[in-house]
Amino acid sequence: MRRNSTPREDGFRMPGEFEQHSGTYIIWPQRPDNWRLGGKPAQKVFTEVAKAISKYEPVTVCVNEDQYSNARHWLPDDVRVVEMSNNDSWVRDCGPSFVTNGKEIRGVDWGFNAWGGLVDGLYFPWDKDDRVAQKICEIEKTDRYRTDGFVLEGGSIHVDGEGTLVTTEECLLNKGRNSHLTKEDIENKLKEYLNVEKIIWLKRGIYNDETNGHVDNIFSFVKPGEAILAWTEDQNDPQYEICQECMQILEQETDSKGRKIKIHKLLLPKPVLITDEESGGVDAVDGTLPRNAGDRLAASYANFYIVNGAVIFPMFGDPNDENAGKVLKEAFPDREIVGIYAREILLGGGNIHCITQQVPKAEEM
Amino acid sequence: MRRNSTPREDGFRMPGEFEQHSGTYIIWPQRPDNWRLGGKPAQKVFTEVAKAISKYEPVTVCVNEDQYSNARHWLPDDVRVVEMSNNDSWVRDCGPSFVTNGKEIRGVDWGFNAWGGLVDGLYFPWDKDDRVAQKICEIEKTDRYRTDGFVLEGGSIHVDGEGTLVTTEECLLNKGRNSHLTKEDIENKLKEYLNVEKIIWLKRGIYNDETNGHVDNIFSFVKPGEAILAWTEDQNDPQYEICQECMQILEQETDSKGRKIKIHKLLLPKPVLITDEESGGVDAVDGTLPRNAGDRLAASYANFYIVNGAVIFPMFGDPNDENAGKVLKEAFPDREIVGIYAREILLGGGNIHCITQQVPKAEEM
Repeated sequence: MRRNSTPREDGFRMPGEFEQHSGTYIIWPQRPDNWRLGGKPAQKVFTEVAKAISKYEPVTVCVNEDQYSNARHWLPDDVRVVEMSNNDSWVRDCGPSFVTNGKEIRGVDWGFNAWGGLVDGLYFPWDKDDRVAQKICEIEKTDRYRTDGFVLEGGSIHVDGEGTLVTTEECLLNKGRNSHLTKEDIENKLKEYLNVEKIIWLKRGIYNDETNGHVDNIFSFVKPGEAILAWTEDQNDPQYEICQECMQILEQETDSKGRKIKIHKLLLPKPVLITDEESGGVDAVDGTLPRNAGDRLAASYANFYIVNGAVIFPMFGDPNDENAGKVLKEAFPDREIVGIYAREILLGGGNIHCITQQVPKAEEM
Repeated sequence: MRRNSTPREDGFRMPGEFEQHSGTYIIWPQRPDNWRLGGKPAQKVFTEVAKAISKYEPVTVCVNEDQYSNARHWLPDDVRVVEMSNNDSWVRDCGPSFVTNGKEIRGVDWGFNAWGGLVDGLYFPWDKDDRVAQKICEIEKTDRYRTDGFVLEGGSIHVDGEGTLVTTEECLLNKGRNSHLTKEDIENKLKEYLNVEKIIWLKRGIYNDETNGHVDNIFSFVKPGEAILAWTEDQNDPQYEICQECMQILEQETDSKGRKIKIHKLLLPKPVLITDEESGGVDAVDGTLPRNAGDRLAASYANFYIVNGAVIFPMFGDPNDENAGKVLKEAFPDREIVGIYAREILLGGGNIHCITQQVPKAEEM
């Protein structure tokens, strides 16, 4: 059922990712102009992610018809596979943001334009992705708020579930999204559709992130009043200034409840570059962002995903992988910390958080 | 989860259609070589059927991607629409037959070959239809019995939920289905997968029925020990002999509990022929059964569908429409009787029962 009201009007809020889930959605990767070698290496890692999550909560994988049999073959029996046409596999960004009133959940169905539409979108067309949120809501039998043209990707926001939202100016004020709206207009949309009171604007996300600096690659809430920030001590890295800037903002700000936010620094891996071989495995298609050898990828451990009882985080074969696991264990002492070697996801332009979308539990704990 | 056992082994049985449902599945019609005028008139009637059923139980309509928006537009908000690729819209025949143990439901996923495969199938290919049962089970989150090559359409059987199954030799012994199996082999498959004890074999179904005489167009259980049989008193109609033959068999037989089955006679409409205009609206495609002007359609009121609290039956603009409603009211005194003018469904080769598939309630009443 489509709702013409807003979550704020109806008393629904977006829970923090750390709150209980009823399950997780993933979309199966396949497009050969983004995923090398026909998507086979990425499909293997997506399968690992689905398996890892399914130890903690139910997983549904959505798949284009022509990959249905293959996805069903590789995914374990206890992972549900449903047909859902899509342009690519970033359900964090094209899927619904679920909100709850403690008894019922509903989906917020944002506009989706492939991270910038005709201005600097990453592929064309994106019509199938724009219908993913609606289709997930139908499968979940939840009502749906359609935001009438307001473009937002789920990865460009993080909430603490208690009225605070963190995002980046680089993304939300980008001229490829809602260029007809002022910053204040955008704040008001977020307040209406996610039922938040306080918006903390970081300036920029991870260096060279093709999403225009999605917050979910640099920052994540651990719980209300506590968060993770991707970090580097390397003053020669262009990322250094970005991290310093984020920290300054976060130190100055308070959340919706007036709290200072405790920050855990999560050291980044060394720069990860696309190899010749990796680049050579990707179809060249006009209108799709090319994967050129030597390009720096936006590798970050902050792109982890919190599930019921665990945190699933990406590893890169970097000495800092181990440190990342330690920092996450300190931040999430009651959860298992599960690392997955995720270079193949990174090669497609994102990581574990970008390829997952939680469905919160309707009932309050 | 795929099960390699059988429902009989696991203590699951197929309930009668008259038992409580948790909902109904329908597939949206569209193929222009079967449905005239690009499927638009049929889509209107399928929408009426979905609306009628949704007054009594939840309805899910499955639709190919290219018709998703259109189906979503015409169907009311409280009917769920999910993407599911298909070759045509006969979910009775390609969908799962659900079985229950009183606590849980599971789907039986038969082989599907478009009513006769390469022998006398009605279109080619049928690969998408053959995956519909699995996909519905995944959406319903039910386990699934795959019957490894055993071809069966749900419309070729009716059960009383207490161990009796009625079918036709014309269909189940047709050389386009399981020609490598004997009648006894086929009986054993039915007994294993539907957990029945007694199989009553009618000889033939409705005259000129392209399904090879599906039982659901001529016979239906009202409840254990009581049934409907399509009927004609017109001795010049080739249907006359078929009805007489069915009645003789049913009078001689007893059900699994040793009961005689009480039969309500349901007078057929006058022969319904395809008009020139109707024939002209259908694409001619090699390998698809043509819809020639003057061909007699297998019109029958027995192709009704029982839902929670009602019976939805087809009307043809025939003087017997009213009688059909009366006979159904006598047979189902506690249910509402809802007639829908369904010539457009008939033109595609079936009727209301053929386009619906019930999901039984898991819990016993």
